[in-house]
Amino acid sequence: MTHTLIYPVHANHTADGHLEVDGCDVVELAHTYGTPLFIYEEKTIRDQCRRFKDAFAACANDYEIIYASKALPIIAVFQLVEEEGLSLDVASGGEYHTALVAGFPTERIFYHGNNKTRWELEYALDNGVGTIVVDSMDEMDLLETLLAAAGRRQRVLLRVTPGIEAHTHDFIQTGQIDSKFGFGLAGGLARDAIERAMASPWLDLWGLHAHIGSQIFELGAFRSEISVLADLLKETREAFGFECRWLNAGGGLGIKYTADDTPATIQAYAEVKCRGLREEMARVDLPVPRILVEPGRSIVAKAGITAYTVGTVKKLPGIRTYVSVDGGMSDNIRPMLYEAEYEVMIANKVDHEPDTVVRVVGKHCESSDVLVKEARLVSPEPGDILVTPVTGAYCFAMASNYNGSCRPAVVMVNNGKARVVVERESLDDLVARQRPLRSES
Amino acid sequence: MTHTLIYPVHANHTADGHLEVDGCDVVELAHTYGTPLFIYEEKTIRDQCRRFKDAFAACANDYEIIYASKALPIIAVFQLVEEEGLSLDVASGGEYHTALVAGFPTERIFYHGNNKTRWELEYALDNGVGTIVVDSMDEMDLLETLLAAAGRRQRVLLRVTPGIEAHTHDFIQTGQIDSKFGFGLAGGLARDAIERAMASPWLDLWGLHAHIGSQIFELGAFRSEISVLADLLKETREAFGFECRWLNAGGGLGIKYTADDTPATIQAYAEVKCRGLREEMARVDLPVPRILVEPGRSIVAKAGITAYTVGTVKKLPGIRTYVSVDGGMSDNIRPMLYEAEYEVMIANKVDHEPDTVVRVVGKHCESSDVLVKEARLVSPEPGDILVTPVTGAYCFAMASNYNGSCRPAVVMVNNGKARVVVERESLDDLVARQRPLRSES
Repeated sequence: MTHTLIYPVHANHTADGHLEVDGCDVVELAHTYGTPLFIYEEKTIRDQCRRFKDAFAACANDYEIIYASKALPIIAVFQLVEEEGLSLDVASGGEYHTALVAGFPTERIFYHGNNKTRWELEYALDNGVGTIVVDSMDEMDLLETLLAAAGRRQRVLLRVTPGIEAHTHDFIQTGQIDSKFGFGLAGGLARDAIERAMASPWLDLWGLHAHIGSQIFELGAFRSEISVLADLLKETREAFGFECRWLNAGGGLGIKYTADDTPATIQAYAEVKCRGLREEMARVDLPVPRILVEPGRSIVAKAGITAYTVGTVKKLPGIRTYVSVDGGMSDNIRPMLYEAEYEVMIANKVDHEPDTVVRVVGKHCESSDVLVKEARLVSPEPGDILVTPVTGAYCFAMASNYNGSCRPAVVMVNNGKARVVVERESLDDLVARQRPLRSES
Repeated sequence: MTHTLIYPVHANHTADGHLEVDGCDVVELAHTYGTPLFIYEEKTIRDQCRRFKDAFAACANDYEIIYASKALPIIAVFQLVEEEGLSLDVASGGEYHTALVAGFPTERIFYHGNNKTRWELEYALDNGVGTIVVDSMDEMDLLETLLAAAGRRQRVLLRVTPGIEAHTHDFIQTGQIDSKFGFGLAGGLARDAIERAMASPWLDLWGLHAHIGSQIFELGAFRSEISVLADLLKETREAFGFECRWLNAGGGLGIKYTADDTPATIQAYAEVKCRGLREEMARVDLPVPRILVEPGRSIVAKAGITAYTVGTVKKLPGIRTYVSVDGGMSDNIRPMLYEAEYEVMIANKVDHEPDTVVRVVGKHCESSDVLVKEARLVSPEPGDILVTPVTGAYCFAMASNYNGSCRPAVVMVNNGKARVVVERESLDDLVARQRPLRSES
């Protein structure tokens, strides 16, 4: 394998010159389950969970790894990360429901979001949510009302906007001052929120949460984040005796989408966060809280690939060649939304060197539906099985029925066996919730 | 109404100071059916269909109006445009299936797409598709194989890429030479395709199709499109006697998303296309074919509004105020994907003048989830029903379950009565196709 770093850990070549993932021939999977198809390697997900645990165990006395479920909120993955000892971050009633169906221990669920609705909060409270991460004063009002009615206390963290600008795509940068998320440090909003939560008979304030963005390559911003949080902890300890037991420092570790990407390692990420926390807490002379981190993308992205079937190869003389696959922006909107770049290979021709540069496009009726602008491939032909790696995060999660597309199946591969964990949508599913213009009667 | 031009035709104010659509109080609809909620006015859709028919009837002897279903591919709308005498453009097996369930006359269906798969073509052929718009040589190969096996002929158009650059967002500009769509004029590809289709015993070539893009404000590009197609018709008539009976000139008419937008009228659009066709055909001395046009956005966009409930109002001193609603990029990705701009109002405060400028954001866990960057509103508060108009096209159609969101219901309003035409997704729907990591046994 020339591309080991962006394929699942146990990706390999078969004797037939096919791509395989942990003993399963990708071409056979495509033919058996149809395309487009999301294929995940179970071992890579487990490996990533363990890397996070090992890295934090090596540099922190007290830590908790929380899977940020929005990257891929499906039952099978919730069960898998639970087996690996991770906790779970959800951001909606839908993700909470999925966690309940998966049997995830609710004590280990963190409920996030800038606008939790009343029914969502009620649903989480009624079903034993461990921790609610409170995002605004309006939410604190609502939560107190619900808890007072139920006559019980709830563990909460407060989301703080640290005012740190991480270097990443604007869309997924979340820590800046001008943000819809959390309580800002500017103007004393975070301080006021801490004071108010401490005074509440219904809220059990265990600590703070901050998240500065996603797909971050430079670790310096994480250290800055902890530094400003330490100042806030000192200020609020002195002002009204706030004791921070848990400091949830969010997610954000960048990953390799292409061979050219150079993210930090999980070890370096853990080291920056843990050493940063120790040093900053020493600076402000406070005890070191438990550190919590919330990886999502870095747990599942590399574990997943998408297999497509090539339908047409259109050569425009003097311009370029377009290779159309049977999916596109309905199963991976990241190239259009975030200008995300992907590599690509033909799963049935992995032993040959790429001999042509083409544009890989989807089947949707718009020009933006481009998966890879400049793809190096081995003589693409209709019927080839084309694979984009590193599609494990935010692809299935953001899939749509655009252009009447049925959303793909998801299979989980382990030790040469494949198992469907999400069934492909059917034509009947597409219209199942639809009703005619007039009732029949 | 101050905003008549971007709201459904029969939008009005109730005595209570609420927004109503054709006699239905939007605030009541929101409370009855829940939010987010797509609300469509049936009469506006019918009006738009009739405007197109009237405009083309006034300036063409032979015309056909085809609803481009990708804008909103649902059964109820298919039935409604069918009643108004429109034909239907589909671009996938899923849209074709929806048309079948709607009982749409298949003779009036045009099947488009740059990568129709084998099963999709078989499904359309087996179910009586009227016209297939052939996009590539690979598709022509496949189609001929399928028709030969079935022993029958099929009416087809050929999609031609005219090399016209329309002024619109790059993502939805489709007529340029460097395109995944159709047969280009450059290099004689379109000419070769016409020659080949004419020689086929299985293909009945009735004409050509071209589409230069969406949301186009300047009509000049449509005239240029017809001009280059006329040259191609002349060349291929002289070379091998091609007779074009139908010229499908695509869609593309821009609409008003905000009060500042200044699209052309349907009348001007029809006039440019019809007069252009007459003049260009006179120039090349050929008979005038039937003109076909494919409006999608301009049929349904203005008919639809989205109602949300405000959850939180977060004032950042010296920066801005964030108003969070209970939907966002999962039900309207157009602001993030196309930098689309929307206006907004509070449906329960329509008689008051806006007194504040805020940012309206969704509930999704990313910073890009902004519906309106600078919205003028009347003192927004939690519980307010906030409405974005002109969300009838490409919002429901592109909706996702991102962040575990259940997709909204769609209601159709007519003469004071509302009817659910798409049911809201339930929590159970979210996990219905999911399977656990291991089987129970």
